[in-house]
Amino acid sequence: MPLKNLKNKEILLASKSPRRKQLLKDVGFDFEIINSKEVDEIIPNNIYNEDVAIYLAELKANTYKDIINKKNILITADTIVCLGNKILGKPKNYKDAFNMLKSLSGKMHKVITGVTIMSIKKTKSFSSTTYVFFKEMSDFEIDFYINNYKPFDKAGAYGIQEWIGLTCIKKIEGSYFNVMGLPVEKLYEVLKEF
Amino acid sequence: MPLKNLKNKEILLASKSPRRKQLLKDVGFDFEIINSKEVDEIIPNNIYNEDVAIYLAELKANTYKDIINKKNILITADTIVCLGNKILGKPKNYKDAFNMLKSLSGKMHKVITGVTIMSIKKTKSFSSTTYVFFKEMSDFEIDFYINNYKPFDKAGAYGIQEWIGLTCIKKIEGSYFNVMGLPVEKLYEVLKEF
Repeated sequence: MPLKNLKNKEILLASKSPRRKQLLKDVGFDFEIINSKEVDEIIPNNIYNEDVAIYLAELKANTYKDIINKKNILITADTIVCLGNKILGKPKNYKDAFNMLKSLSGKMHKVITGVTIMSIKKTKSFSSTTYVFFKEMSDFEIDFYINNYKPFDKAGAYGIQEWIGLTCIKKIEGSYFNVMGLPVEKLYEVLKEF
Repeated sequence: MPLKNLKNKEILLASKSPRRKQLLKDVGFDFEIINSKEVDEIIPNNIYNEDVAIYLAELKANTYKDIINKKNILITADTIVCLGNKILGKPKNYKDAFNMLKSLSGKMHKVITGVTIMSIKKTKSFSSTTYVFFKEMSDFEIDFYINNYKPFDKAGAYGIQEWIGLTCIKKIEGSYFNVMGLPVEKLYEVLKEF
């Protein structure tokens, strides 16, 4: 459903993620993809884990300030995976992915997506947290998943919509789409009032 | 991942639901679809809502007893939507769908899927419950959804993977795939030991 308040605005999504693109499309928005710039994701020491995702989404948004004009709105997002106090990034290689999934096995972790919406007049950021409960996974299952799905572009080394999500996640508390990379229900609410 | 214990078995899925078919495929099983027979879904009075989904899955499975042999395994499933003590079926028409979604608006409901696995030697049934929390929906949003997605084949008049799920569900507690119609993580566990 196109939102009336955004009728004359061009929505820009700065993201490389095909999942984010698909989710925003499924919500029914017309939008343009703009190439996500590489950002040095340096996180200040004094920031709480809960705020890291928003911090990174804003960091990304700020690199596009020069292309924002009266006619467009920019959306950026960043998803992080927190296990206890540790933030898990994207795995560098097979071993890294294996260790990440091994550390998630049998435990609850948090997936936090930060979103920034920026227009020429204002900037609004928010985040959404989903609790994800993995069952105990065997080394065989972890190995099978990494070899067949190569989750090297995914924070925490897994995609909830892939084999491992279908077979090894006991339950979630929160938004499923947030774990995929974009809390579309919150984004829709915020855009309605933007 | 094909399960070793089922290596020489043909898996039969008796379901009309394209979502169930897709989920079972995504888990990596080879299986055949067999046409779901029409079953008179008469629910005994003395049965708890929690047990209705299993009751209906077993009712369906029992209609296929004649085709079960040493070489195959049958899977049937039934998904129900419970709002308080009321079970919501598939909506008969626009008005019915509208009233159902209106009654779910701003409230929590339960989605329960019962699954029956039947071989020539044994029958095993289980169910999975997911709590789904809808935000307050406007009449305009409900009308938009029904007109564009025609959810007449869906218990409770919605599909979580469609526009209404992306924009109007605040959070869930439990399995997302269970709400789509098949609790694949439990099914995978049960099939492993079957």
